[in-house]
Amino acid sequence: MASHTNDRINVVYQLAARDRKQALARARDMTVEQTVEVPADVVPRRLRQTMVGAIERLERVGPSRWQAACSYDPAVVGDSAPQLFNLLFGNISLMPGIRLVDLQLPRAVLAGMAGPAFGIPGLRALCGSPAAPLLCAAAKPIGLSPAELARICHDFATGGVDIVKDDHGLANQPAAPFRERVARCQDAVQQANARSGGRTLYFPNLSRGVAELLDDLAYVRSLGCRGVLLSPLLIGLDTVRTIAARGEVAILGHPTFTGTLLQPRHGIAPEVLFGTLFRVIGSDGVIYPNAGGRFPFSLKSCLAINQRLRAPLDGIRPAFPVPGGGVDVAHVPYWLDRYGPDTMLLVGSSLYARRNLAAATARLVESIRRYGDG
Amino acid sequence: MASHTNDRINVVYQLAARDRKQALARARDMTVEQTVEVPADVVPRRLRQTMVGAIERLERVGPSRWQAACSYDPAVVGDSAPQLFNLLFGNISLMPGIRLVDLQLPRAVLAGMAGPAFGIPGLRALCGSPAAPLLCAAAKPIGLSPAELARICHDFATGGVDIVKDDHGLANQPAAPFRERVARCQDAVQQANARSGGRTLYFPNLSRGVAELLDDLAYVRSLGCRGVLLSPLLIGLDTVRTIAARGEVAILGHPTFTGTLLQPRHGIAPEVLFGTLFRVIGSDGVIYPNAGGRFPFSLKSCLAINQRLRAPLDGIRPAFPVPGGGVDVAHVPYWLDRYGPDTMLLVGSSLYARRNLAAATARLVESIRRYGDG
Repeated sequence: MASHTNDRINVVYQLAARDRKQALARARDMTVEQTVEVPADVVPRRLRQTMVGAIERLERVGPSRWQAACSYDPAVVGDSAPQLFNLLFGNISLMPGIRLVDLQLPRAVLAGMAGPAFGIPGLRALCGSPAAPLLCAAAKPIGLSPAELARICHDFATGGVDIVKDDHGLANQPAAPFRERVARCQDAVQQANARSGGRTLYFPNLSRGVAELLDDLAYVRSLGCRGVLLSPLLIGLDTVRTIAARGEVAILGHPTFTGTLLQPRHGIAPEVLFGTLFRVIGSDGVIYPNAGGRFPFSLKSCLAINQRLRAPLDGIRPAFPVPGGGVDVAHVPYWLDRYGPDTMLLVGSSLYARRNLAAATARLVESIRRYGDG
Repeated sequence: MASHTNDRINVVYQLAARDRKQALARARDMTVEQTVEVPADVVPRRLRQTMVGAIERLERVGPSRWQAACSYDPAVVGDSAPQLFNLLFGNISLMPGIRLVDLQLPRAVLAGMAGPAFGIPGLRALCGSPAAPLLCAAAKPIGLSPAELARICHDFATGGVDIVKDDHGLANQPAAPFRERVARCQDAVQQANARSGGRTLYFPNLSRGVAELLDDLAYVRSLGCRGVLLSPLLIGLDTVRTIAARGEVAILGHPTFTGTLLQPRHGIAPEVLFGTLFRVIGSDGVIYPNAGGRFPFSLKSCLAINQRLRAPLDGIRPAFPVPGGGVDVAHVPYWLDRYGPDTMLLVGSSLYARRNLAAATARLVESIRRYGDG
């Protein structure tokens, strides 16, 4: 068993195995597969000791279920974030019954990660909201014209939400070409702010493609946008890190396309994926499917995500939990009681069901502000 | 039911449902979730008809298992590849028991995809091998120095493999910094070629990160490399498309980190992921875990992947199937009989077990060339 594990990449996996012997064999296979990837007997001895991961602990956690704590030398990763993802869940993703349930990254690896450029304090400063929970609303659906989307943004801003983000499906469709849509929506939010004295921010979705991303980023900044929506699994985990490292805009990370990673017996625990990985690649707010919504997420997972997003992490800023995906207006006080003020609630469809969008938004905003003061 | 489905994005999903009524409700929910993403009653009528997908067929395929053929207007996607992935398996990835099992993309969408810049004919021309199966070997493990990796590349090239690729875990580690490693390996292959008259190509792994990718690409081209290894899920699906669209280097796509997508009842069928999606984003060869190796892949899946990679696809070039992940030297004739000559076999660890790497490689190359002539 290796000693100075604070300096190492510490990963805990749960595995299917009928007994300790099989569990140990599987854990050893994993640490080889994820590193040297050749049979142990053809690996030079010095690499067996340095590159292959060490199994620090192995314990039974259920019938045919074992938990293996492994540690790796940061030299396996070097300064490459893609290689970190590869080490954590690369080829072993192709093997059955392996779940990454805990992760601690040493300073040497965290230093190569951007982390949130703004984080909770930075986003609060941008929104001018020092203590209250933040409210985010989504402009949708796809198929609307730029003028129609701008009207919705205007209503949300008039109602006083902190952030209006694009729906994550808004890209560069013929119904609403990217540049026109973003310009109109940003203009609508600025006009509403000028009238109301509010400070609503508009975060456009950047998903035209990697080739267009830096141009699109420059364009939205030229319009005055202070943040964007990015879907890490669509645009690339490391693409998000690259944008975050520039430090120019705040980033909301969206969970689309992540679902298969979140199986109960294979994949990555939601708190590790959303709470640690999405944070370290640089999301200032991490959208996740809230418990009780239209996706099967447990309250326990949500609380664990929140805890990890806010916990101290060696110089990496904390990020806002952004529970969404079916948060009903009527249940907002319930969720704020559970999640606390350092939360950004994403309320979408249930506001659209109200006749007067701006007035319904204003009532919701008022109830949230009261929560923050109380 | 919509008619002109040739012009539409046609996707077939299998879903868990106890009866037709529930299956239809789930299929309708899916087509809403993946497009307008708000309750149907707040969607303007014109969008219900144009943006929401149509359910073309619904049939029972097993106990509590239904198959829904859906079609979407390409206007849902526009020209954005990330939005295509989002439409196909975005938020529904977060719902249980949904599997994408078939996909046909219309010309309007394919036109926005790069497709392989070289494809099977182009890679054959680069390798100077007009008809025989190709052989690919991997330089590894991580932890070796550039000189040690170069020596392995030299042996493989002396033995006459068509392509030596980096292990997908080689990034920019202290043991073998990117630039030095790539320069040494390329030089070793060129020296071996000069001595043997061979045409082995060296494909370095580009996984330092998105920010470094274009610099790294320019660097490997300046050394004379004609292709690279990319892991789409690590570096980004659309990042691969972006590199392919430049048309400068051939691309081998690696399956690391894809495993959770490949569940039997939730995710994306391997032939759709590797056979269609990895091809249309621009992989000239697609590495996948071969049946009978150390990953649980069936022969049926492998044959289906091969078929899709080679099938005519509206101007998109065919791509090489590259079965790997435990292909034993002794079984090479068996696999070539089943897979045919338009295959690139990735043989790794079993060659390393031989005492004389170059000689073992040469014997294997000879047996493969005989297959191509026969």
